[in-house]
Amino acid sequence: MSAEAASAETHDKAGGEQYPNIVTYDRDPSQYRHWSYEVDGQIATLKLTVDEDGGIRPGYKLKLNSYDLGVDIELNDALNRLRFEHPTVKTAIVTSGLDRMFCAGANIYMLGQSTHGWKVNFCKFTNETRNGMEDSSKHSGLKFIAACNGVTAGGGYELALACDEIFLIDDRSSAVSLPEVPLLGVLPGTGGLTRVTDKRKVRRDLADVFCTSEEGVRGKKAKEWGLVDEIAPKQTFDEKVRARAEALAAESVRPSEAEGVKLTPVEREMREDGYGYRFVDVRLDEATRVVTLTLKGPEDAPPADGEAARAQGVSFWPLQVARELEDAILMLRTNNETFGLWRLKTEGDADKVLAYDDFLDAHADGHWFVRETLGYWRRTLQRVDVTSRSLFAIIDEGSCFAGTFAELAFAADRSYMLDLPDDPDAAPGIVLSAMNFGRLNGVDDRTRLAARFYDDAQKLAALEARKGEVMKAEAAEEAGLVTFIPDDLDWTDEIRIATEERASLSPDALTGMEANLRFPTKETMLTRVFGRLSAWQNWIFIRPNAVGEKGALKLFGSGSKADFDWKRV
Amino acid sequence: MSAEAASAETHDKAGGEQYPNIVTYDRDPSQYRHWSYEVDGQIATLKLTVDEDGGIRPGYKLKLNSYDLGVDIELNDALNRLRFEHPTVKTAIVTSGLDRMFCAGANIYMLGQSTHGWKVNFCKFTNETRNGMEDSSKHSGLKFIAACNGVTAGGGYELALACDEIFLIDDRSSAVSLPEVPLLGVLPGTGGLTRVTDKRKVRRDLADVFCTSEEGVRGKKAKEWGLVDEIAPKQTFDEKVRARAEALAAESVRPSEAEGVKLTPVEREMREDGYGYRFVDVRLDEATRVVTLTLKGPEDAPPADGEAARAQGVSFWPLQVARELEDAILMLRTNNETFGLWRLKTEGDADKVLAYDDFLDAHADGHWFVRETLGYWRRTLQRVDVTSRSLFAIIDEGSCFAGTFAELAFAADRSYMLDLPDDPDAAPGIVLSAMNFGRLNGVDDRTRLAARFYDDAQKLAALEARKGEVMKAEAAEEAGLVTFIPDDLDWTDEIRIATEERASLSPDALTGMEANLRFPTKETMLTRVFGRLSAWQNWIFIRPNAVGEKGALKLFGSGSKADFDWKRV
Repeated sequence: MSAEAASAETHDKAGGEQYPNIVTYDRDPSQYRHWSYEVDGQIATLKLTVDEDGGIRPGYKLKLNSYDLGVDIELNDALNRLRFEHPTVKTAIVTSGLDRMFCAGANIYMLGQSTHGWKVNFCKFTNETRNGMEDSSKHSGLKFIAACNGVTAGGGYELALACDEIFLIDDRSSAVSLPEVPLLGVLPGTGGLTRVTDKRKVRRDLADVFCTSEEGVRGKKAKEWGLVDEIAPKQTFDEKVRARAEALAAESVRPSEAEGVKLTPVEREMREDGYGYRFVDVRLDEATRVVTLTLKGPEDAPPADGEAARAQGVSFWPLQVARELEDAILMLRTNNETFGLWRLKTEGDADKVLAYDDFLDAHADGHWFVRETLGYWRRTLQRVDVTSRSLFAIIDEGSCFAGTFAELAFAADRSYMLDLPDDPDAAPGIVLSAMNFGRLNGVDDRTRLAARFYDDAQKLAALEARKGEVMKAEAAEEAGLVTFIPDDLDWTDEIRIATEERASLSPDALTGMEANLRFPTKETMLTRVFGRLSAWQNWIFIRPNAVGEKGALKLFGSGSKADFDWKRV
Repeated sequence: MSAEAASAETHDKAGGEQYPNIVTYDRDPSQYRHWSYEVDGQIATLKLTVDEDGGIRPGYKLKLNSYDLGVDIELNDALNRLRFEHPTVKTAIVTSGLDRMFCAGANIYMLGQSTHGWKVNFCKFTNETRNGMEDSSKHSGLKFIAACNGVTAGGGYELALACDEIFLIDDRSSAVSLPEVPLLGVLPGTGGLTRVTDKRKVRRDLADVFCTSEEGVRGKKAKEWGLVDEIAPKQTFDEKVRARAEALAAESVRPSEAEGVKLTPVEREMREDGYGYRFVDVRLDEATRVVTLTLKGPEDAPPADGEAARAQGVSFWPLQVARELEDAILMLRTNNETFGLWRLKTEGDADKVLAYDDFLDAHADGHWFVRETLGYWRRTLQRVDVTSRSLFAIIDEGSCFAGTFAELAFAADRSYMLDLPDDPDAAPGIVLSAMNFGRLNGVDDRTRLAARFYDDAQKLAALEARKGEVMKAEAAEEAGLVTFIPDDLDWTDEIRIATEERASLSPDALTGMEANLRFPTKETMLTRVFGRLSAWQNWIFIRPNAVGEKGALKLFGSGSKADFDWKRV
């Protein structure tokens, strides 16, 4: 393992005894320390009761139902279990197991002592978890109600904002608030500032008042300003939440009777030089700081129908490869920060990938399990889009960049495709499928091809008409699908030189550049969360006014007042 | 003058002998050291020939036609002179007076030695200058052609990108490039990354290659990739540029015969506690770090028609107040960085403001001078939108927040309006005019009211139907136009407390928060420049990989290679 991963002290032992300091993202309800969920008919209740002593790293207590990365990893796991193990759940109520305290947000002491990179990665993951809730609401009918049964502050309110509706207990003390600016000198950076405007449509001057107020807003005013949907006193709170949850469930496309799929652990082999999975391989090259991430196509034909797919469970190839890819992405982001370039490769039979794509397309609207599997892919590819690593797609002999796998090439910052004009049998191809035309949209809510070609309808229609065609290097270049097509004489050197060049550039400049070029023209609420909001938050996270010795984040709780440099930048 | 302004060493003496270290933004062609322009019929040629020894601050030489703030202040001035003094100019050719060198961009040594705040303010101003070129092209028919007669690098290419069309000389050595990432470890932060995608629609993988290449792209490939519009060898370059300039001019709405308006200097009185102008007053309160910016309404009725307005020249009230307001904004941003809160006030007769609004609305489409005056206002209000200071509108007795002036209240982060229910004669009002419904759009290309009400067509139509109605505090609050309406008992205390609270918060957190809340839901190319791009650039500008002792920006030209922390964040 890399040095920086090994030096990270963490309580998380899930990396296995051999790698005690690795942060892992796979959990099982039997290991939960903070979240729990109960299913009652079509309603699930997700309950946060944080174990103060259960921080993922040492040095802070998770008081007042505040959270750290470990708490959110459990939430992410629980959401996936609702999606797959409990397909008949149509509404999830998100609430707290404490009295008069919903959630105080991200733990401030954790933030105060974390490195810049840890803070940013933590925010990215929590953003993805919340975006995933909205994704499920929009695409698969799993609705969320925040039942804010007490103080709902900072990240706690941001969690509520990710739900479809927010109910706040009306008890003269429970308020919703975003006190990050006045209290900590940082932003509500997990989507809060964006959702208050873009989703809740709170008038901007009221949002200004709200976001500069330590105490927040409660009761009738919270509802009038649009900060919550409903308020109710303690006596009727649960009943009203439940009634609304049932009403939302009535409109859901989730099935009323269905057998779930058990999410058994993703099997990951920890190696000195990477991570090995059944269909995903991660190879780390310490010398060049380059990751080679290889996805393998299926070996078999798809099952007969949706129910047969469900019977395969986590072995259903598209689900298995998506889960493995997600795990690899999260592991790499956290444990291998210095590996700045990922080479994305595929191996296998393009026809078999396409057969699965056809299967997914045919059954996604008709069977919950196929729909959920597609959702897993969509969210995992969106994780690729916002990963702050340079991405080169390497399309070489034996690859299968077809349909779903071709999305990796379109998500990449650039691509290299081997041109073998004299050996058509060995020459790799790119093939488009229905998966490239609307099933796997990016966070900008359009296809990666639409983003690539600036929504040029004519060009996109022409490409859609070529679905199924195997495009070799020259055809793919002509169609604008790949960046470079070296022949076999230049192949190795050209990629080596490009890799070395890329790996020599400033990691920060590349992060900023890629964050701009990957999201051309169109912004959505989610791109604004990852762009405008996160970029400003990243800036603030390294300013002395926040993290300097006299910064607000550092001094919080110490009794000392922050000492600001008053210059406005 | 504040301490930080006084400590700024600068060569700029335009602040007057009494305040030698103040940076001022007013120039006169007789003072130009870097730019020149010639008018030949309907075509003007703007020529950059940088005086190496003419830096606005000491310590660097402006080699290779590179620029600093002082160079760009001249460009801003020259553009205004084309707009007003030369109304018959329809196309401006932007080129260089050097051989084989168009412009090498922002001066790297200047960037390397500047404070973070100076860099950010410099980028903001240069962005506004470039956006202003696009604003004139879109709204008043003044077109721009970049005649890149040599190396066009970094900010030089960003200047070209702001033009309607880019011509590149085809001489086997002149390339366009954005070498900031590979060479300096920072971003092309003056709109470059955004315009390459959003305006030029360069495919994102090609943009990735382009933006990581030190040498850039030239000739045919530059045209194929969409980086330039035309290439031509030296022999035919000037002729082709001229022909295209004439063709663009043929479509312009600028007049073919018209008398211009001389832009005499804005008269500014430098005071110990601020700046005084004829219709604008800036009062600095050192103790609270609060600026009170007061705009005064007109004393007379508007002139009879457009030509009579033109005859008034710079004394035409809307133009004079816009020029004074712009000067005040720029002065405050640069010279008074610690003054984090601006209170926006107005004084005068609302009816007279409205009479001018009616005049502007009636003649904007018919007379070039009125159109240009409106453009000045639109761009100046957009400067308000992106100013990183908290903005409180104070609507008190004697104020005239009507029409154009009401835009200040809608640009503010929040507003306070005095409620005098028992004294209707003294109670201040807000009045809407045509200026609030499309003439003065923000950088998000919609009215400030549309942004405020999330494009709610019904609400906006209802407000438009109330044009001319004097809305006192309760009516204005009911309509959602103001934030708070204290009565005269609470007025002073409520504003004092809010001011003190605001002035106590982290300046960085406020900057980030305001940059998010001011631009809800909708993004445009320009908001993306100020949001996504500038926020990332600001982050990179304080990272050790750029500005640390071993950072790329610091070490440029030293012969030493940057030593990067390879962690990706």
